[in-house]
Amino acid sequence: MTARQVGILGASGYTGAELVRLISTHPEMEIAAMTADRKAGQQMADVFPHLRHLDLPRLTTIEQTDLAGLDLIFCALPHATSQAVIAALPPGPKVVDLSADFRLRDLEAYRRWYGQPHAAPDLQAQAVYGLTEFYREEIRAARLVAGTGCNAATGLYALLPLVEAGVIDPDEIIIDLATGVSGAGRAAKEGMLHAEISEGFAAYSVAAHRHMAEFDQEFSRAAGRPVEVTFTPHLLPQNRGILATVYVKGAPEEVHAALADRYADEPFLIVLPLGSHPATRHVRGSNYVHLGVVADRRAGRAMVFSTLDNLTKGSSGQAVQNANLMLGLPETAGLTLAPLFP
Amino acid sequence: MTARQVGILGASGYTGAELVRLISTHPEMEIAAMTADRKAGQQMADVFPHLRHLDLPRLTTIEQTDLAGLDLIFCALPHATSQAVIAALPPGPKVVDLSADFRLRDLEAYRRWYGQPHAAPDLQAQAVYGLTEFYREEIRAARLVAGTGCNAATGLYALLPLVEAGVIDPDEIIIDLATGVSGAGRAAKEGMLHAEISEGFAAYSVAAHRHMAEFDQEFSRAAGRPVEVTFTPHLLPQNRGILATVYVKGAPEEVHAALADRYADEPFLIVLPLGSHPATRHVRGSNYVHLGVVADRRAGRAMVFSTLDNLTKGSSGQAVQNANLMLGLPETAGLTLAPLFP
Amino acid sequence: MTARQVGILGASGYTGAELVRLISTHPEMEIAAMTADRKAGQQMADVFPHLRHLDLPRLTTIEQTDLAGLDLIFCALPHATSQAVIAALPPGPKVVDLSADFRLRDLEAYRRWYGQPHAAPDLQAQAVYGLTEFYREEIRAARLVAGTGCNAATGLYALLPLVEAGVIDPDEIIIDLATGVSGAGRAAKEGMLHAEISEGFAAYSVAAHRHMAEFDQEFSRAAGRPVEVTFTPHLLPQNRGILATVYVKGAPEEVHAALADRYADEPFLIVLPLGSHPATRHVRGSNYVHLGVVADRRAGRAMVFSTLDNLTKGSSGQAVQNANLMLGLPETAGLTLAPLFP
Amino acid sequence: MTARQVGILGASGYTGAELVRLISTHPEMEIAAMTADRKAGQQMADVFPHLRHLDLPRLTTIEQTDLAGLDLIFCALPHATSQAVIAALPPGPKVVDLSADFRLRDLEAYRRWYGQPHAAPDLQAQAVYGLTEFYREEIRAARLVAGTGCNAATGLYALLPLVEAGVIDPDEIIIDLATGVSGAGRAAKEGMLHAEISEGFAAYSVAAHRHMAEFDQEFSRAAGRPVEVTFTPHLLPQNRGILATVYVKGAPEEVHAALADRYADEPFLIVLPLGSHPATRHVRGSNYVHLGVVADRRAGRAMVFSTLDNLTKGSSGQAVQNANLMLGLPETAGLTLAPLFP
Repeated sequence: MTARQVGILGASGYTGAELVRLISTHPEMEIAAMTADRKAGQQMADVFPHLRHLDLPRLTTIEQTDLAGLDLIFCALPHATSQAVIAALPPGPKVVDLSADFRLRDLEAYRRWYGQPHAAPDLQAQAVYGLTEFYREEIRAARLVAGTGCNAATGLYALLPLVEAGVIDPDEIIIDLATGVSGAGRAAKEGMLHAEISEGFAAYSVAAHRHMAEFDQEFSRAAGRPVEVTFTPHLLPQNRGILATVYVKGAPEEVHAALADRYADEPFLIVLPLGSHPATRHVRGSNYVHLGVVADRRAGRAMVFSTLDNLTKGSSGQAVQNANLMLGLPETAGLTLAPLFP
Repeated sequence: MTARQVGILGASGYTGAELVRLISTHPEMEIAAMTADRKAGQQMADVFPHLRHLDLPRLTTIEQTDLAGLDLIFCALPHATSQAVIAALPPGPKVVDLSADFRLRDLEAYRRWYGQPHAAPDLQAQAVYGLTEFYREEIRAARLVAGTGCNAATGLYALLPLVEAGVIDPDEIIIDLATGVSGAGRAAKEGMLHAEISEGFAAYSVAAHRHMAEFDQEFSRAAGRPVEVTFTPHLLPQNRGILATVYVKGAPEEVHAALADRYADEPFLIVLPLGSHPATRHVRGSNYVHLGVVADRRAGRAMVFSTLDNLTKGSSGQAVQNANLMLGLPETAGLTLAPLFP
Repeated sequence: MTARQVGILGASGYTGAELVRLISTHPEMEIAAMTADRKAGQQMADVFPHLRHLDLPRLTTIEQTDLAGLDLIFCALPHATSQAVIAALPPGPKVVDLSADFRLRDLEAYRRWYGQPHAAPDLQAQAVYGLTEFYREEIRAARLVAGTGCNAATGLYALLPLVEAGVIDPDEIIIDLATGVSGAGRAAKEGMLHAEISEGFAAYSVAAHRHMAEFDQEFSRAAGRPVEVTFTPHLLPQNRGILATVYVKGAPEEVHAALADRYADEPFLIVLPLGSHPATRHVRGSNYVHLGVVADRRAGRAMVFSTLDNLTKGSSGQAVQNANLMLGLPETAGLTLAPLFP
Repeated sequence: MTARQVGILGASGYTGAELVRLISTHPEMEIAAMTADRKAGQQMADVFPHLRHLDLPRLTTIEQTDLAGLDLIFCALPHATSQAVIAALPPGPKVVDLSADFRLRDLEAYRRWYGQPHAAPDLQAQAVYGLTEFYREEIRAARLVAGTGCNAATGLYALLPLVEAGVIDPDEIIIDLATGVSGAGRAAKEGMLHAEISEGFAAYSVAAHRHMAEFDQEFSRAAGRPVEVTFTPHLLPQNRGILATVYVKGAPEEVHAALADRYADEPFLIVLPLGSHPATRHVRGSNYVHLGVVADRRAGRAMVFSTLDNLTKGSSGQAVQNANLMLGLPETAGLTLAPLFP
């Protein structure tokens, strides 16, 4: 069988480069088109020299590119832009969107969190939220899958089974999280300079981070009633990796059992023994999630830890996993690379 | 007036080196003796080349060293060792201990947290807990001051005024904290190698960190009844700096006002405007603490942020500040160096 | 055809872990045995949690392990130990040694550089130097291949074609090199702590580094007369990657042409256009080497740049590449993973 | 005596912030004015939160600011801009310029290296090159001092005494250098992002770096004839610190003696014993330079190592040192802060 032909829109960002890295050793996927409006005409090796060994199509503008014959399109464009671009795509190819544009089923929530009305409400109605392990069958059947926020995925993996199982108090969830900087993308910003980031640590978007909208949507659905959590993200002096430290009220053994049971057959989700906790460095560059539960010294409380690589399982790896499902390929194809350590 | 003569026991560790750095530009303190048992006979420049420009006494063993004539001794030895060494010191010099040995007023708590009975209970009875801004008068009069844990200080600065003022629920405190690696000292351990630490983030000593004993002691005293908190420390891929993100239940405005009022006249504690939060990089190498309060999106909840440099305000800077008080010097002498950024 | 069965001796170090990472997605190789004397009885996941998703044999001692039926053994033990262990191996399996023990064909050179007589001179006589692109046919036929030094490989790739082609003055070679810390291994040493390494840069083993013995051996062979170079390695505040900046006297165009010609058909060696130069970050985690040549402003001089990942192409990737040849597998099998960036 | 009143033009960059840091504990200097055109109206604490504890004048535009009454002005503006601004300053205050605009005595060289004619040739004629230890008397008498390039200073300290003393072959000098990123300033550039810089190493401006113009000027003057060197700078994944590794032909003992003799009475230049070499981390945040000489294994060759902090001795510390001389203050005033390690 010939490999499935895929395109990448917005290939000049970090999630675009990560898609190329993963697909380059994928046994049944081939990159047939890559767009990057501001870098059109360049070779990917000029934009990302680490991909120099690959034989890739030259970067083009979306307008220049024949997308109709592709099997699937990864859209790695900024939010707002994505809505317009995806709405104008030919009807044939399936679409995995890595932006925030189709994550929120409630159009009003979109307007509130992203500050503007949704421009493609019909498409939103068809979109499936891309948290693979919780929407697998819908993703298999979807034409449009909305990749999750990377912080959102990290917290959801820790908590969704607990809310579903009813083993914690959903009104007392605190998600403290730290993320590497690659999630902020490749745009040149003073605050993302090496001299500003390295050797330092701080919170960001406190009480205001947009991934809270995804928490609200998914936890409320799981609980069957509105749930709001407290969420504080921090920025780490490292490139990849997210660790969520989640404070819950519930019996630690039940919490651990709920996670272990829920993920027992999942190829990418690994629950450590009760009392162990994970490190971002041990999932770097991979599609694996490591989860741990530790009992607090105070009875009836526990800490749940969840870690993944924001560029892999948090975005581009998740996108490939979902694409595999949408294309009828083995779900883990191209995604079993071991983490890079040290 | 001639400078006060001080000695440093255990000068070959990071807190020892930090004491030398600070005292080297202190206008009224002079280092007359430095001990380091395993490095005795060496010059400090051999152990810490960054101090090569200074004219310092050669490293000696404690036995070789005449300590009786000193005005004050900084003891930067490991816990357990410190008890024995300090108990055997000549009676003249005042003592600032940087270890954990004299922090806990309750001898039984010491035994429980440190796994052995206290070897110098009489000395413990005289020791003053070294959180300067809360024990200033006692420190001024003390012969022995016990430096606080660096994580403990970071959390206490965020919370003690709130517990004292009764503006938060003391039973619902969660302290999530991240620290640089220099707090772990200079001992060669696999887990502290650059290849193990850099580009990664994880919790450590979850639900078991000994600085919780200090939290229990100080919060219970402030509340007038037993208080237990949840505390999760993490290890950052950076050398210096601690940031505590503290989750409290209370009115954000009252929380902010309690901190701002309490620290209004403190030279080293800076409370940011309500809604702002601090970064470790902005206190690096300095004796300053930056504090911030942000309202959670959920009413009646707030996040309190506290940051300091673990080697400066978290240990050696605090030690010099306390020494200044004990010696009748201006409290800020030698400690107004600006942070090093970037 | 069933996968070739391989064993890893010394699996608990970084090169051992890197072998496991690479072999885990190798289509025709399977790990049947792993030894680590001090960690015998443990699971690899206890020693390297990033490999937790793999189904690997438990760590054993060499004595406990039946090695006779293996197709090939990777020996990732320290030098001196390796000689004794390899001499005692059963005769069946082929051997790729990653230590320094069999790199030097001149036993007297070994004695001089490593401070002790060679303990297995007969084996040395059979060993082939593992610089794949220069010893390919000998490696294919060898029972024992000696992996190169990682710094040595980096310099040799930049220079061997130039010395062979006679386009530079072999008496005026200066190799200035910087390497990540993972090359120093996982042993706990004060100098390798994060607090000592990060945010700093210095040379090490100046005028004394043992990889000079490999330079002498290979450059002298290529030149047909004794050649000595100047070599200064430095230690970088990063984990992976070596960059050699080589100063030569020769015509830049001829230097570039000699490299481009020599490596035109090599799958892992990429020569950038004249005037471009590479970065360590663009080969991280991969088996690729990027080479560049820039003309000096002074006529008749050029800088040659060579970069590779010390744990991959510099040791474990090279080892797998050589093993592929020795086992009659496609040379690139398992080695085409794209670099991890950022 | 009242403190000297100084102004800082361009205070919102890293060298501006470093000037503030140093002057904040300077016993005889006071900041009376600070300009930053694009940040005018802001407090310095908004631009650099690490300076929040200081009582500083609000940022203004140059036009808004009364500079005439100042004793001295530090100009930390970009090159080209600096010429115009300094030409328009009131005649009273002395000026220390940190840009490249007045470093080259040969106006034609300026035009060639900076790509445009010099706009203030009369001022250039009065300017003194700010390498303090080699132009001390001229600096004392100057109205305008041109701060050196940070890379240039690092190389000049290693080599000028050797060229002056005639102990090396001036035609065989190779300067290999690595620098932290803060030298590139605070402007937002893709190539300076944390994700691009960290965990990687590469050369930059190969065979084209403008600091070569300073090498040419100073070495030719010292040798009494034209001297050209080979110079390759690299960018380190760290914020501060430059290390030059210089390859020379000469007798190592004579090389070491020439440096040791020349710098014997210099307060900030420390020559290590022959055979030792320095590390950037041991001068971080300080005005000290550490120099070392190691004999190559090849007779008649040596490596000279020179390290300094690019923001301190490489720019702002040097500027304060020169200002001290120009104002008749003790040369070391405010500059004896110990390096920050770790």
